[in-house]
Amino acid sequence: MTERESNKTNLPSEFICTEGKHSLFENAVRELPIPVSSVFMGEDGNIVPAAFEETESLFMCKEHDLTEKTFPKTMARTRNIVLRGVKQKTPQKVTGKRVAVLFSGGPAAGGHNVLAGLKAALGKDNTLLGIRKGPKGLLKGDLFEVKTSQLNEVINTGGFGFLGTDRTKIKTPDQFEQVKETILKHRLDGLIIVGGDDSNTNAAFIAEYLEKESIDCRIIGIPKTIDGDMAAGKNLPISFGYDTATKVYSELVGNLAEDAASAVKYWHFVKLMGRTASKITLEVALQTKPAIALISEEIAEKNISLNQMVDDIVRIITLRRMKGINHGVILIPEGLVEFIPEMSVLIQELNKVLAEYERDIRDLPTLKNKQEFLYPRLTAHSAQLMAALPEEIEEMLILDRDDHGNVKVSQIETEKLLIEKIRYKASEVKRHPEKYFGEGEGKIPATPEQLQELQNLSLSTQSHFLGYEGRSGKPTSFDAAFTFALGLTAGSLVLAGKTGYMAAVTDFDKGGTILALPLTGLITCEMRKGKEEMVIEKSLVKTSSPSFKAYAENREKWALNDLFCSPGPIQHWGPASRQMPITVALDQEYTDYKTFNLGEEKVIKLKD
Amino acid sequence: MTERESNKTNLPSEFICTEGKHSLFENAVRELPIPVSSVFMGEDGNIVPAAFEETESLFMCKEHDLTEKTFPKTMARTRNIVLRGVKQKTPQKVTGKRVAVLFSGGPAAGGHNVLAGLKAALGKDNTLLGIRKGPKGLLKGDLFEVKTSQLNEVINTGGFGFLGTDRTKIKTPDQFEQVKETILKHRLDGLIIVGGDDSNTNAAFIAEYLEKESIDCRIIGIPKTIDGDMAAGKNLPISFGYDTATKVYSELVGNLAEDAASAVKYWHFVKLMGRTASKITLEVALQTKPAIALISEEIAEKNISLNQMVDDIVRIITLRRMKGINHGVILIPEGLVEFIPEMSVLIQELNKVLAEYERDIRDLPTLKNKQEFLYPRLTAHSAQLMAALPEEIEEMLILDRDDHGNVKVSQIETEKLLIEKIRYKASEVKRHPEKYFGEGEGKIPATPEQLQELQNLSLSTQSHFLGYEGRSGKPTSFDAAFTFALGLTAGSLVLAGKTGYMAAVTDFDKGGTILALPLTGLITCEMRKGKEEMVIEKSLVKTSSPSFKAYAENREKWALNDLFCSPGPIQHWGPASRQMPITVALDQEYTDYKTFNLGEEKVIKLKD
Repeated sequence: MTERESNKTNLPSEFICTEGKHSLFENAVRELPIPVSSVFMGEDGNIVPAAFEETESLFMCKEHDLTEKTFPKTMARTRNIVLRGVKQKTPQKVTGKRVAVLFSGGPAAGGHNVLAGLKAALGKDNTLLGIRKGPKGLLKGDLFEVKTSQLNEVINTGGFGFLGTDRTKIKTPDQFEQVKETILKHRLDGLIIVGGDDSNTNAAFIAEYLEKESIDCRIIGIPKTIDGDMAAGKNLPISFGYDTATKVYSELVGNLAEDAASAVKYWHFVKLMGRTASKITLEVALQTKPAIALISEEIAEKNISLNQMVDDIVRIITLRRMKGINHGVILIPEGLVEFIPEMSVLIQELNKVLAEYERDIRDLPTLKNKQEFLYPRLTAHSAQLMAALPEEIEEMLILDRDDHGNVKVSQIETEKLLIEKIRYKASEVKRHPEKYFGEGEGKIPATPEQLQELQNLSLSTQSHFLGYEGRSGKPTSFDAAFTFALGLTAGSLVLAGKTGYMAAVTDFDKGGTILALPLTGLITCEMRKGKEEMVIEKSLVKTSSPSFKAYAENREKWALNDLFCSPGPIQHWGPASRQMPITVALDQEYTDYKTFNLGEEKVIKLKD
Repeated sequence: MTERESNKTNLPSEFICTEGKHSLFENAVRELPIPVSSVFMGEDGNIVPAAFEETESLFMCKEHDLTEKTFPKTMARTRNIVLRGVKQKTPQKVTGKRVAVLFSGGPAAGGHNVLAGLKAALGKDNTLLGIRKGPKGLLKGDLFEVKTSQLNEVINTGGFGFLGTDRTKIKTPDQFEQVKETILKHRLDGLIIVGGDDSNTNAAFIAEYLEKESIDCRIIGIPKTIDGDMAAGKNLPISFGYDTATKVYSELVGNLAEDAASAVKYWHFVKLMGRTASKITLEVALQTKPAIALISEEIAEKNISLNQMVDDIVRIITLRRMKGINHGVILIPEGLVEFIPEMSVLIQELNKVLAEYERDIRDLPTLKNKQEFLYPRLTAHSAQLMAALPEEIEEMLILDRDDHGNVKVSQIETEKLLIEKIRYKASEVKRHPEKYFGEGEGKIPATPEQLQELQNLSLSTQSHFLGYEGRSGKPTSFDAAFTFALGLTAGSLVLAGKTGYMAAVTDFDKGGTILALPLTGLITCEMRKGKEEMVIEKSLVKTSSPSFKAYAENREKWALNDLFCSPGPIQHWGPASRQMPITVALDQEYTDYKTFNLGEEKVIKLKD
């Protein structure tokens, strides 16, 4: 009997041991060390909670009076002063605290390390409780005690699967009452809310409510969102999950750029997740150097119309063709439509008409009837724009509404809208070369041979949407370290009796500085769906930022030459495993993005 | 001035150095060592070409007489005997040979290492020429001499970008004449064709043609296809590119499984590339353990109808819901439609009618007219099936035809077809619970509370297509080693004067055995589009294979419990970087899939 024959039956059974997140990779990442900032390092090398002291940094609310009126108790307490985490001088033993944690909104890589960090900060003398399925679980009181053994199983792994998440917003008096009941029933001393801008706004309101009700439970927010729009300059360069998501997308965009250059015929149109900000698109563009990347904030700022955008893109496609490059990658931020000036006007008009004539629109039997009803009620400019949209998009705008009766902007297939408009325009360039080529302003020089060749070229397009696959990947080394630090910070804040703060980490290049940002300091007043609301402001791409400038200064070169990078799959070992987002490094004016430094590395094994 | 201020301007300029495939990752992978089989190791540690000897292994053609009639010269020469690569006993210096190489068909990871391997085998005394843009470049004579410095730049990187590729088929006498002209003009002693089944079939025909024309140019094929359908049992366990593509897809499917379990509401429907075989889907299923994976070959073999398939899937969705799991991942092979018995009949009927009445169909003005014309010409069963398809799919079947006038099967959005059918069926289960729940055969036991809960559940679906992003990724360590070995083998074969073979490597678990497979031995006679053609047979999933059995034996458990794995991004360093495809390890009856062994590792720096 040969070796193979005798072992024949072993492999199938051995392979089954990988079930339930025990692939070779998953088992190995659980053992990876995590850097820990010095403020959490105890004398004996064990992890200890940090203490906090006030800094000189004070948040100036954009709407100070309104914010103070809305959050009087919290503002009186925090005075909007940023706290800094410091090493406890004489470690104080806090015991018997019960702290619950929930995930809110879409998953982001590193959530499980937040839990591990929390547990490590609370230690064995306090209790960590997990809230199942997000804010809904908080309302229903669906809590359980988290065991260290469970966390050792999920540390460094992706997703929010250990707790689950949901998108329930806590707004009504009844809901606040339910939160109170859960807190009292489970005798919670602290509640950690891991979420984006809306969830942290929620955290601020809950903190204020509990103070008013004289309930002694600390509320701490943790900045999560792959979109990267939850950030606060030097105090919080970025939210967690952004690094992993952008690196997953960069791997795929790099592969698609390679694919375009290999098959030498495709234009890959890639829509990237990110409801509002184009921060994901900017990071992926800097990582991969595509032919074209659209940045919504710039388009709104410069008032670039849809037609202008299409003309610009077709011009680049044509210039590349003149150089023999009939392929490329175009990055499109998911939220683009709302930033295109005339589309934004159309959507606003539609929302208004749809609200005013809800019943009419609903009851009119056919799409044609609805169109007949709608068109006269739009401005001429908007009506003309809508009539020129691809049929499916027009249909979607009229028929698909969200719970508030508004157009579902996020579902508009922007990439397909652009593809259709670009194909139309590119075909015009072929049909009327005299208008586009030759001498004279705005015209492209071309030889007769080039024009002949152009007639033989076709525009092969492929559309892609990169979204869900970036939310639940294994955290990069950076996100793994960042989230563990955020968990340690949040746990320390609760033990230090702080409430109404968001945990933050900065100085990613030199060991990590631990901060606590007063939630009220981040809040501003925005018009949302026609109503004034107190919300945490989204951090958008600034066209004055170093990261945007790095793109703007190089994009012409990337447009006209195939200079793309394929930055590869996320590495957890080896020389490429310690990178941070390039946009963050540029905007924070770090000297390096290839190696972050968030403290001394430790293999984390939680002990009971 | 602080350290940051003084360095402020360095980072943007430093970052620009990454342009054109010089990201940190790309620079690092170029330096990675590659295992080299002992037969290519010279006395001095340098790489040398292998020699070849006949084995006892003889390919029995399925259509021996027909093959011998079609390929008399080649068959007389190779006698369909498999050759084995051995270490040259007394190294013979072959010099002055000119060998050209082309990529054909879709990109696959590792193509650049094939070139590096070829160059290393040919050494500095022979010339490697690259053919630009695939077979079309061969016809046009678009060749250039490949420099070692160029290959050192692309070694271990992804895609076919260095040469480009296309899908031109060489079939007509004129085309063969053009191939001859190019060979004579460039004085080629060898031509290496890197491609899939069609391209290697082409290689066989070119080899025979050249022998007939008494032109002394060796033709060697190299088995490339991410689909994995180019394989020959123990002699060639798999084609190159499969490992990388399946690992890219497995990363994403694992992330989506995490995402489903985190958001606790989504069913992700994932269509996976693979025109015919379901080998990619099977590998990804074994890697990720999804709720459901459809294997086309099984569906055809068991004659499972579309409705039966939908019923089975909805049953699993319902059983999971009974256990509180309202989410999951469903894998769908791209080629599924053609394997569903009644769909396959419908497509055949349509192709026949569309061919017979081409003019009528084209000239009828509206879709409705075309439908009126088509329906009476189908069998009643097919007409009924087509009428029940989603509108867009029906439209696509009627309107979109390929160059041969056939239905474009690959463009049918199978995942959307399934989603629509499944939503319809799942809604029926909710509307008529009495038919599906309770006691009795085939019914699902449920408590009144469970049935109540079911009414509150909605089916949130997301569809994905994973394809292009898997073709041009950086080769895995396995594909990097495999392709370098294939290149070394092909180069050695040309130098040894062999023609009409395909380079192959086997015994991935013990150093790699180098083989040359007679192309004619792989050829069979198939009906393609109504005509008999001599082609290399596609290797499909066998339901009797260990890999399929490993899936079949475990799928019920994976269907009813969330036991998924998230095998993570491809690692090029660290403990997870040496895996091979699990399907290959199972079917080859290896004892391990975690560590391949293709020889001793060497950092490859080609020298002039």
